[in-house]
Amino acid sequence: MPYPDLTQRVAVSAETLALFHTPSTATISAQLMKRGVRSAFMANLTPLNPEQRLVGRAYTLRYLPAREDFDGSLGLDDLTNIQRKGVEEVGTGEVFVVDARGDTGAGSMGEILAARILKRGAAGIVTDGAFRDTPGIRALGAPIYCRGMHAYMNTTRHFAADLQIPVACAGVMVCPGDVLVGDGEGVIVVPQAMAAEVARDAAAQEMLETFIREQIDSGASIRGVYPPNAETLAAFAQWKTRNE
Amino acid sequence: MPYPDLTQRVAVSAETLALFHTPSTATISAQLMKRGVRSAFMANLTPLNPEQRLVGRAYTLRYLPAREDFDGSLGLDDLTNIQRKGVEEVGTGEVFVVDARGDTGAGSMGEILAARILKRGAAGIVTDGAFRDTPGIRALGAPIYCRGMHAYMNTTRHFAADLQIPVACAGVMVCPGDVLVGDGEGVIVVPQAMAAEVARDAAAQEMLETFIREQIDSGASIRGVYPPNAETLAAFAQWKTRNE
Amino acid sequence: MPYPDLTQRVAVSAETLALFHTPSTATISAQLMKRGVRSAFMANLTPLNPEQRLVGRAYTLRYLPAREDFDGSLGLDDLTNIQRKGVEEVGTGEVFVVDARGDTGAGSMGEILAARILKRGAAGIVTDGAFRDTPGIRALGAPIYCRGMHAYMNTTRHFAADLQIPVACAGVMVCPGDVLVGDGEGVIVVPQAMAAEVARDAAAQEMLETFIREQIDSGASIRGVYPPNAETLAAFAQWKTRNE
Amino acid sequence: MPYPDLTQRVAVSAETLALFHTPSTATISAQLMKRGVRSAFMANLTPLNPEQRLVGRAYTLRYLPAREDFDGSLGLDDLTNIQRKGVEEVGTGEVFVVDARGDTGAGSMGEILAARILKRGAAGIVTDGAFRDTPGIRALGAPIYCRGMHAYMNTTRHFAADLQIPVACAGVMVCPGDVLVGDGEGVIVVPQAMAAEVARDAAAQEMLETFIREQIDSGASIRGVYPPNAETLAAFAQWKTRNE
Amino acid sequence: MPYPDLTQRVAVSAETLALFHTPSTATISAQLMKRGVRSAFMANLTPLNPEQRLVGRAYTLRYLPAREDFDGSLGLDDLTNIQRKGVEEVGTGEVFVVDARGDTGAGSMGEILAARILKRGAAGIVTDGAFRDTPGIRALGAPIYCRGMHAYMNTTRHFAADLQIPVACAGVMVCPGDVLVGDGEGVIVVPQAMAAEVARDAAAQEMLETFIREQIDSGASIRGVYPPNAETLAAFAQWKTRNE
Amino acid sequence: MPYPDLTQRVAVSAETLALFHTPSTATISAQLMKRGVRSAFMANLTPLNPEQRLVGRAYTLRYLPAREDFDGSLGLDDLTNIQRKGVEEVGTGEVFVVDARGDTGAGSMGEILAARILKRGAAGIVTDGAFRDTPGIRALGAPIYCRGMHAYMNTTRHFAADLQIPVACAGVMVCPGDVLVGDGEGVIVVPQAMAAEVARDAAAQEMLETFIREQIDSGASIRGVYPPNAETLAAFAQWKTRNE
Repeated sequence: MPYPDLTQRVAVSAETLALFHTPSTATISAQLMKRGVRSAFMANLTPLNPEQRLVGRAYTLRYLPAREDFDGSLGLDDLTNIQRKGVEEVGTGEVFVVDARGDTGAGSMGEILAARILKRGAAGIVTDGAFRDTPGIRALGAPIYCRGMHAYMNTTRHFAADLQIPVACAGVMVCPGDVLVGDGEGVIVVPQAMAAEVARDAAAQEMLETFIREQIDSGASIRGVYPPNAETLAAFAQWKTRNE
Repeated sequence: MPYPDLTQRVAVSAETLALFHTPSTATISAQLMKRGVRSAFMANLTPLNPEQRLVGRAYTLRYLPAREDFDGSLGLDDLTNIQRKGVEEVGTGEVFVVDARGDTGAGSMGEILAARILKRGAAGIVTDGAFRDTPGIRALGAPIYCRGMHAYMNTTRHFAADLQIPVACAGVMVCPGDVLVGDGEGVIVVPQAMAAEVARDAAAQEMLETFIREQIDSGASIRGVYPPNAETLAAFAQWKTRNE
Repeated sequence: MPYPDLTQRVAVSAETLALFHTPSTATISAQLMKRGVRSAFMANLTPLNPEQRLVGRAYTLRYLPAREDFDGSLGLDDLTNIQRKGVEEVGTGEVFVVDARGDTGAGSMGEILAARILKRGAAGIVTDGAFRDTPGIRALGAPIYCRGMHAYMNTTRHFAADLQIPVACAGVMVCPGDVLVGDGEGVIVVPQAMAAEVARDAAAQEMLETFIREQIDSGASIRGVYPPNAETLAAFAQWKTRNE
Repeated sequence: MPYPDLTQRVAVSAETLALFHTPSTATISAQLMKRGVRSAFMANLTPLNPEQRLVGRAYTLRYLPAREDFDGSLGLDDLTNIQRKGVEEVGTGEVFVVDARGDTGAGSMGEILAARILKRGAAGIVTDGAFRDTPGIRALGAPIYCRGMHAYMNTTRHFAADLQIPVACAGVMVCPGDVLVGDGEGVIVVPQAMAAEVARDAAAQEMLETFIREQIDSGASIRGVYPPNAETLAAFAQWKTRNE
Repeated sequence: MPYPDLTQRVAVSAETLALFHTPSTATISAQLMKRGVRSAFMANLTPLNPEQRLVGRAYTLRYLPAREDFDGSLGLDDLTNIQRKGVEEVGTGEVFVVDARGDTGAGSMGEILAARILKRGAAGIVTDGAFRDTPGIRALGAPIYCRGMHAYMNTTRHFAADLQIPVACAGVMVCPGDVLVGDGEGVIVVPQAMAAEVARDAAAQEMLETFIREQIDSGASIRGVYPPNAETLAAFAQWKTRNE
Repeated sequence: MPYPDLTQRVAVSAETLALFHTPSTATISAQLMKRGVRSAFMANLTPLNPEQRLVGRAYTLRYLPAREDFDGSLGLDDLTNIQRKGVEEVGTGEVFVVDARGDTGAGSMGEILAARILKRGAAGIVTDGAFRDTPGIRALGAPIYCRGMHAYMNTTRHFAADLQIPVACAGVMVCPGDVLVGDGEGVIVVPQAMAAEVARDAAAQEMLETFIREQIDSGASIRGVYPPNAETLAAFAQWKTRNE
């Protein structure tokens, strides 16, 4: 069999994206696990606005370590600067994903660029580096995730090398177009080719877990309830009918 | 002298537990230090609800690193699964303590089990691993502590091996029945055999520190006040009489 | 050329300090970078009250690792204890800076001393170690920064060795009298010798960035706006006139 | 299905153990991976004598963090001390495995005990903590692995809690009786229940890899050789006949 | 000014490469520092054969974190597998550089591929991940550098994504064609565009330092000798004449 | 009681220093522990020449993090440069101790200065930072310890701030004049005030342990031997007589 092609873009319907607004990243992880994907949760990210949900498709920026013989602050006027080019290219509903190698020794983006990205209609921003002007970025109110905060500009540690290639972010492979879903726990990457079925099954599982949680809150033991036995599943079927 | 027996359970009175609701973990650490115990504070835990106080006796679960030849997701129906068994065994007023080896690469417990544990009357939950469904767990409103957040299920990294044996949690030895006290700073383990005297002296010290803090707020220098000299102690004695 | 003298104290005017209350640490970092100073932001500090701004000149305390042959809890009554001496010496408007070697295995200061320091008129407290009684310290409401929280007293890990000598704090050299500015992102050290010009230029840059941010919020692309071209700068000149 | 029982001891033949003396830990890991076991290599251990091979069955000691209210230096005379008891109980051909929680802040064993363990016929020693008297332990010449070196005695950080229970060592679950194989790269844990087939297939794979390596050394491309196609396998069959 | 183009390949003469065989990486770093390049030394690599010198131009492989929906073990027969393709493409005198994100949780290459790379005439191998079969790789005797050792195959953690694009390795940007020089201290990246002058000046500096070292060994103080004053430089000029 | 004075220098006799050449750092740690000193072993240092023993009194250099407004490369000619001043001041038999804050991101000393220090008669060098020219420094053959290796000059990360003040090195307080003893395991700091008795008792303990080791090698159990009972101590007394 030939080697996988990471650049294949798969259509994801608006319905699928809509379905992702309900289930938690924990529930989605269970669906990914069922399909053998155990390496999709981005570790150790801080949600700046944990009550916001993130849903969107990845638009990627790859940083490399800065090396002083290449001046990464050039190209600002003509937008040949790769970072700036990305800021003006990211599309509506996309998530701006920054591969900063987990290096928090300088900001990987500041407030003005973050504001512009969101103004362009992006769904959110995820970096495994630091932000600078973090209080201002938090105040944008969007689902935004980072590893740290640092006042210094990105060019002191990073050189923007590529846009829209597969990257590593917070330990997970992210290909352009993959679906990112975030909640107060963090961000999970749903491979675009399995987005539709994961969305459908995660939404269904979330409903079941809501029902189970109600049983627990009513004093039920987990026995027969979590995981549900036939009796519990029958009760769930009725509950679903009532709640629809 | 023979080797210490970690399994000896010592009675702790309701009065002692009640006394622990006032002093800070910092004050308790000073009392432990006086008795030579310098290794009792759990390092680097995040309180999900920092305004809640935790007081209770330890009920322990030991995880081992998952190894794929042992399927840790079995035994869910008959509760032979060690994790599930613990959830249905933990008693009223106990603290569910999870030894997750500090590994935050997967959740060590999710929302439904945490809800059940609290529904059973447990005083709180402490893990040195991650939670999954962390926003839901925080919403339970109880004193709950963890090291991180991760969407994936415990079985991707952990295998529940034992209940109610001495464990390591966040760098501290915890024996079943030890008293755990938590505040917004973290969790301290009070060896059950010295719980009564530590509670009594910590409560007294807390009152003195409240008095000293009032002096500082009134503009006193620390000289003669912190630590208190005879004059300050005399003033404290009067203050105590007035405040009783 | 002779070796630099770190002990030279430079006057910093009240006007300069006042100017530092507006620009973010990110803006200040840009001005320092223009002057070649790339190593001035304190990494990985947590602001206990992120909405508070810190501005003041450094008063330093150096801790060494505790060694049991030297009892660091002596000298409390006569204030020969170096930590206590510092608490009663720090001046109005100064920032109490603690070099704790990044060691968070014990508190580097507790609530009563922190309260006293602020009562003496200090502008804030910065440690690269932990606090103990952290909830109480946070409640003081001042701009206070730390690396962690730990219930145990400083003497279990630290020995207060020196006051008012140049120290390392959170990876940055801090000399007595250097200006520290903090916001919700962290703390930046402004070398006292360049404080006046950095304050002036940072305040000006902050105004420009406010204008640019308004343009972005109105839907402008970053092109020609960030960085500003001649047209944008002209518009800014007009805006400034209107806003003065 | 019921929950797995970690305490089931499985016989491992002398032939199986003998087979493990040839294949590298890398080859064994490939065989474990084929059987779904991806969590068996002990990370970040240093072989004190990298040219020595380790083969033997696990005899386990679990340390907990020392807590000053339990004196871990008692019971030395009557061997009720758990560490000392283990030293005099470990059997011929066994590997003494120490779960030190990866804590290298004190030795987890010193030279005299290590010498005694080997004198009793043990095959080797593995700790995920530090050794003390490390130069003397290295000089014993046996296959011995550790995470670090530290002069202080184990009791300053560790309390010996249990013998012969399943433990975590260097991130891997180890049950008493599991087969440990070590070479200059580190140590791999072979679950005892699959030891026979892993030994057989690893030995076979090692032979094939030796043949492939010869082809590479003769200038062959990896194409058709690694992995081997039918032609290469046929040549290997002939080679095997010649080399037997 | 337009943004830098990382893909520009610059010719490096055989003479330049030959010159790099003498100066230490420390001496080369001083020459890079003079040209403003302070981010060129690869941190925390272990030389498997520290007495070997590495000189060659970079041939790069970029790994991404493995994600189970993409099977990285495909394409072995037809060499569409990116890792294998690289192994059969790397040229004589090149250094095979692996960007493994510093992840040592699995091997990033094993013995047979390493042997093939060297058989093809490569100058050496550098990875910021782990090797597997490390003892066998060390025995190849070539200048080879890594961060760790791990028995498991690369596909358990890595997915080979790209060949010959700029990468990050051990914290340094490496572009295809950059010159890598290694000694017992580690590896330094010399930007290809400045290789000629750095080689020339580093060789000259090395000679001067050899002379200075002789003076020190003869009992000279560093005063006037290191750095050399006019007198010492004159003596060096004579020494050079004698030693040529 | 007044606060301890770290600057008090205590005489240490040549006999005491001579006694330290025999016992291991492990044995010395046991003697320090008996006197309550549990924080004296320098963690995670690598001995460049592990077979060499280090014995000498501390001469200290404190580095601070470099800050670009202070040029640490000045004062080389007139030796006002603090690092260079120290190199020409360290005395015969002293150990040059560098407090580099554990930062290995640049060398803290290079080959020429190390050669000069040893040429001046110093007993050895200890840094908790990195060396540059490490292979050359190792070749000096002396007892030298470090945390890492890095090609870049000290001034890229460090600013030499002080000589001969108490410092932190590898987590331990070191006062000028303290006795440092090193072996293949690492370095231990013996407080100068207790050097005489520690040396005497450590030498005696080492002899006893040699005897015990002989018993173990002859097949004795640890029971009654380690720790020794009256019978073993009597045998030791005889052995001592025979071996004197």
